[in-house]
Amino acid sequence: MHRGIYLGRFQPYHMGHHQVIKQIAHEVDEIIIGIGSAQISHEIENPFTAGERVLMVSKAIEEFDIKHYVIPIEDIQRNSLWVPHVKSMVPPFQIAYTNNPLVIELLSEAGIQVKQSPLFRRNHYSGTEIRRKMLEGDRWEHFVPENVVEIIREIDGVNRLRAIAQSDQE
Amino acid sequence: MHRGIYLGRFQPYHMGHHQVIKQIAHEVDEIIIGIGSAQISHEIENPFTAGERVLMVSKAIEEFDIKHYVIPIEDIQRNSLWVPHVKSMVPPFQIAYTNNPLVIELLSEAGIQVKQSPLFRRNHYSGTEIRRKMLEGDRWEHFVPENVVEIIREIDGVNRLRAIAQSDQE
Amino acid sequence: MHRGIYLGRFQPYHMGHHQVIKQIAHEVDEIIIGIGSAQISHEIENPFTAGERVLMVSKAIEEFDIKHYVIPIEDIQRNSLWVPHVKSMVPPFQIAYTNNPLVIELLSEAGIQVKQSPLFRRNHYSGTEIRRKMLEGDRWEHFVPENVVEIIREIDGVNRLRAIAQSDQE
Amino acid sequence: MHRGIYLGRFQPYHMGHHQVIKQIAHEVDEIIIGIGSAQISHEIENPFTAGERVLMVSKAIEEFDIKHYVIPIEDIQRNSLWVPHVKSMVPPFQIAYTNNPLVIELLSEAGIQVKQSPLFRRNHYSGTEIRRKMLEGDRWEHFVPENVVEIIREIDGVNRLRAIAQSDQE
Amino acid sequence: MHRGIYLGRFQPYHMGHHQVIKQIAHEVDEIIIGIGSAQISHEIENPFTAGERVLMVSKAIEEFDIKHYVIPIEDIQRNSLWVPHVKSMVPPFQIAYTNNPLVIELLSEAGIQVKQSPLFRRNHYSGTEIRRKMLEGDRWEHFVPENVVEIIREIDGVNRLRAIAQSDQE
Amino acid sequence: MHRGIYLGRFQPYHMGHHQVIKQIAHEVDEIIIGIGSAQISHEIENPFTAGERVLMVSKAIEEFDIKHYVIPIEDIQRNSLWVPHVKSMVPPFQIAYTNNPLVIELLSEAGIQVKQSPLFRRNHYSGTEIRRKMLEGDRWEHFVPENVVEIIREIDGVNRLRAIAQSDQE
Repeated sequence: MHRGIYLGRFQPYHMGHHQVIKQIAHEVDEIIIGIGSAQISHEIENPFTAGERVLMVSKAIEEFDIKHYVIPIEDIQRNSLWVPHVKSMVPPFQIAYTNNPLVIELLSEAGIQVKQSPLFRRNHYSGTEIRRKMLEGDRWEHFVPENVVEIIREIDGVNRLRAIAQSDQE
Repeated sequence: MHRGIYLGRFQPYHMGHHQVIKQIAHEVDEIIIGIGSAQISHEIENPFTAGERVLMVSKAIEEFDIKHYVIPIEDIQRNSLWVPHVKSMVPPFQIAYTNNPLVIELLSEAGIQVKQSPLFRRNHYSGTEIRRKMLEGDRWEHFVPENVVEIIREIDGVNRLRAIAQSDQE
Repeated sequence: MHRGIYLGRFQPYHMGHHQVIKQIAHEVDEIIIGIGSAQISHEIENPFTAGERVLMVSKAIEEFDIKHYVIPIEDIQRNSLWVPHVKSMVPPFQIAYTNNPLVIELLSEAGIQVKQSPLFRRNHYSGTEIRRKMLEGDRWEHFVPENVVEIIREIDGVNRLRAIAQSDQE
Repeated sequence: MHRGIYLGRFQPYHMGHHQVIKQIAHEVDEIIIGIGSAQISHEIENPFTAGERVLMVSKAIEEFDIKHYVIPIEDIQRNSLWVPHVKSMVPPFQIAYTNNPLVIELLSEAGIQVKQSPLFRRNHYSGTEIRRKMLEGDRWEHFVPENVVEIIREIDGVNRLRAIAQSDQE
Repeated sequence: MHRGIYLGRFQPYHMGHHQVIKQIAHEVDEIIIGIGSAQISHEIENPFTAGERVLMVSKAIEEFDIKHYVIPIEDIQRNSLWVPHVKSMVPPFQIAYTNNPLVIELLSEAGIQVKQSPLFRRNHYSGTEIRRKMLEGDRWEHFVPENVVEIIREIDGVNRLRAIAQSDQE
Repeated sequence: MHRGIYLGRFQPYHMGHHQVIKQIAHEVDEIIIGIGSAQISHEIENPFTAGERVLMVSKAIEEFDIKHYVIPIEDIQRNSLWVPHVKSMVPPFQIAYTNNPLVIELLSEAGIQVKQSPLFRRNHYSGTEIRRKMLEGDRWEHFVPENVVEIIREIDGVNRLRAIAQSDQE
């Protein structure tokens, strides 16, 4: 049994994540998707709740025929405890996929094998870029899987993002 | 789409849980399993980590042909925030299954439909009883699904429980 | 300006508290009522939320003609920080009224004057006793001020308490 | 009984807040003033403690003949829990007054009626502007109610603000 | 360089601890004393602050000629993170001395060598027993090192303990 | 007995700190070194763990012949509680050495004597500057005591800092 973990915030889950997971699915028997900053929502950089992101990821990866675990991971605010925190919340894994240098350093110090995930067309497929399009009324729908478009519509996600974006200081 | 949530600590997941879920699976389209007290482990009443419990539940319910979400839920230590906390961590649901009177009260005050889950042979199928058997060297294996037995063996769970049980005060 | 503080959990506010405050009102210019364990509710020993308790206290002491401040105080779980925590949350005060030995010790170590409040008919006027009566269906209404009876009725407090009391372990 | 809530940080309480509350007082039977970020003090943007702000607000609104509750509200760092957190700390309310888009969004998602409060002469009556004047030695006293001027003097608030403002990094 | 850690709550530091440390001092080059439950004080089981306990331990072990580190360690309330929490707060160590079965289990799961420390005359030298003597007015002074007696006198520790012990419920 | 406290983050401990402590050692009988932001590590501004910083400080000041206490202090995120938090974690002290205006203000409001520590050649001896040199491959070794150089080498600190520095946003 070879199990890998892929970590992200998924605000929202997009085609870039989707293609990375598709590839990881060929390399491992089972895949864990860790949804980071799970406790955060209703922020411009983080509009969606953990539950909404669990739904996005779960629906999207149904099409890949691989056993998966989609797990929200709350921030722990202490880098030295982050790896054991993640390990306590998910099934055992042998390899982690990430491009984040801090995460790579923390995992490596803990003796965990890391593989940098190939990024697909990063310019198009970035959460920041997609949120910008949502805010400005540009087309964003083709950058995320179809089921994710539907979920965002059901929760009226674009209007939520716009409401939050107006928030100014007292 | 009718989605239900079933909440428990699953220390460990046993045949009682299994039969309840089997029945719920007939009543809803999708099921969320919320693993409570996710941050707690290595206690006599709570020997297993959230990750280990995610694995137990996920492996066991593979045999039921139902879309499911297995989500660790950390305690929030404030009853008045517990329902919104759960809601933020899991996909939207229309009904909750539980027999815990406090949970019933909290969900009801929040306007959520609750159905008390039928308990199967409570005497045999109780986490407390199974942990007691583990401690005393009695046979416990037939009270939990086979994949769960295997997981507990792989993590040497019975010896962990015994080690913890000796813990006395300084 | 002589300002005093009176601290309690007020689960619920009862005639014992009421008579103590009536007396304190003669000794100070302004009174602060600190509602302790503000974050806790929906427990047998602590059925009511801070907001509900703010309402009880505020309505009840309207009849005393004294400037008052009713302030919820969350627990801080560290005795050595409790006094500065309270001080940061309420207006400055010169004297504290309490019978709790730990609170007396903490205030004294911090150099704050403490006066033990006379307790009135402790047997009848105890939160524990009133909650017991509520649970067992005994008459409890004459032990709390009239406005408090009304508030507890509006929030269906007795049924909440009974629901919680049934809560058993999984 | 129609009860409204008005939320702010009140660093410090100023004539802008005062005029808003005066107007709200005509629309509701009782008013709750929620003092946000209650746990924060001794920062350039947040010089005053919750207790000091409770005092400012309470003294200032004595002149309005309306039943009021002045309640410190600690931050909860999770937007999805902020509304239930507030609700647990204050008496029940039917309407909320605020201009903050995030707060409007959170309250609306929770099904609570929101009314945007008219801002009075925003340029003059802004906390940021008043703190700037305090720092630069400009006259600030006519922008806040008289009792608030007195409170700030008693706690030597302007000197505190200046001391904090010098704080540089190690 | 061989560095060992010895963990305890030290409420108070007594001759039992002292003799254990004396022996460990012969086995390692440097010793770390981890003061557990550092955030707790003013409780019957935990009367002294971390700072007071740092002072007791530091003064007492001056007589042993060994390089030492005396480090307060706050509780982390999550067994699965306790070992990495400790490791982040103290210098690197190769061996841990403890008799607590839970701590032994946690350290062992983390791959750290554990040696059970020989207990000296456990009956006489127990924190519980010494606190009981303090409460009841028995002689306790010969059970702790002389400098510790002095420190407890300076902070009026016995009277603090007695004050706390009277604490009853509201 | 005259005891003083010196507070810093020590990321890393450098010759500036060293010379300040050398001078303080002439003015007090015993010195406490409080290591601030103890829970933080693996950040560009805060690369080292509390334990690593305890080791740096302890090894470096061995050469001064003064009784010392090196104590990690976790952040408490509430300025109004910071002084009592520090006091609870360290032995009693009569004077504090610091140049930080906020810390000066907080200590002064708590009635504690503060002495601003003379800074030595600030330009050369700044943590920010030393971390910059580490990142850019400049010589940094002569700005920190020799034992500290060794400790940073043993933990491969410069490579850790460089790895963290590459960290970009998702």
